Amino acid sequence: MDYFSGRMSELVEQLAMLPGIGRKTAQRLAFHIVSMPEEKVEKLSSVLIETRKHVRYCADCCTLTDSERCPVCSSDRRDHSTIMVVETPRDLAAYEKTGKYEGVYHVLHGAISPMLGVGPDDIRLKELMKRLGGDVKEVIIATNSTLEGETTAMYISRLIRPLGIRVTRIANGVPVGGDLENVDEVTLLRALEGRTDL
Amino acid sequence: MDYFSGRMSELVEQLAMLPGIGRKTAQRLAFHIVSMPEEKVEKLSSVLIETRKHVRYCADCCTLTDSERCPVCSSDRRDHSTIMVVETPRDLAAYEKTGKYEGVYHVLHGAISPMLGVGPDDIRLKELMKRLGGDVKEVIIATNSTLEGETTAMYISRLIRPLGIRVTRIANGVPVGGDLENVDEVTLLRALEGRTDL
Repeated sequence: MDYFSGRMSELVEQLAMLPGIGRKTAQRLAFHIVSMPEEKVEKLSSVLIETRKHVRYCADCCTLTDSERCPVCSSDRRDHSTIMVVETPRDLAAYEKTGKYEGVYHVLHGAISPMLGVGPDDIRLKELMKRLGGDVKEVIIATNSTLEGETTAMYISRLIRPLGIRVTRIANGVPVGGDLENVDEVTLLRALEGRTDL
Repeated sequence: MDYFSGRMSELVEQLAMLPGIGRKTAQRLAFHIVSMPEEKVEKLSSVLIETRKHVRYCADCCTLTDSERCPVCSSDRRDHSTIMVVETPRDLAAYEKTGKYEGVYHVLHGAISPMLGVGPDDIRLKELMKRLGGDVKEVIIATNSTLEGETTAMYISRLIRPLGIRVTRIANGVPVGGDLENVDEVTLLRALEGRTDL
């Protein structure tokens, strides 16, 4: 890259700092960017800055949003007495896509991981606890089904249960439409344990 | 994405327009960008614009560069009587990395492709022809070993040979370090045809 342009090298450096963008991809992107119409590059550039400046955390659920409160938290058609706890805004988006969940959310922005040195104070747990006064009836823990997600689920349930609020965990089981033979053993056992009457 | 932020959606749109960046990658990048320190986003953003604004085509060889002439074309330690014709600045960079080529380059920014409707006027061929007055002794055609690259090589050689300038083509053959059994048949035949005495 240095063979022709110091600026190109700088752009490649910048792009290669983004997650999942290696040097080769960064080079390919840089070549594309210098061949784009100047207005399009200006647009991309300004959207980057504007998004970073204006996107913030919802005052209630801590998801990313453009305003003080996210659309879910500010809707009065949602059931504010049921809070689903998720790790990331993407998990929230995944549940919103189902169109069937009527409660609200709480986004932790991470999960407790002693291995990575992420403790309860490093995620948005205090913010969740603050919301539990009033008429919250159920907290559904929908953290990932990983070691960290399970640790976080256990930790939160121990904090909340003494408050007399129902704490539930989303089910493990065989994915709908999946072949049994492609499902791992732990999931198969969880699906068996969680069987329901027909 | 719309579930929480219109701005995030816009950023995802913008990122997803880049080549090789799908929707999922664009989302992942967008989430990363809103969590980056604001100065870093400003830096990325300004490098984008500045690079697009200031990078231009070398007045001689048409590669991308920050100045009127690229470092290779403005060096008097290079042999300006030998011009290697390549398709892209990346091909130029690949040959520069070898550190052994002492001539200069010409970057076509593409290859002739009747299939894609790319004709001789759509690549930087006129610019090459203009350089051939004076003391140019050899034109080495290093376009890709693809249908388009070969078509372009043939076309250029027919244009240049009448001028009494030597026209050569880089060799096809077995890659160094490669197992014969993994090399395709056409390459094997080319390697045989191009055999040299030991």
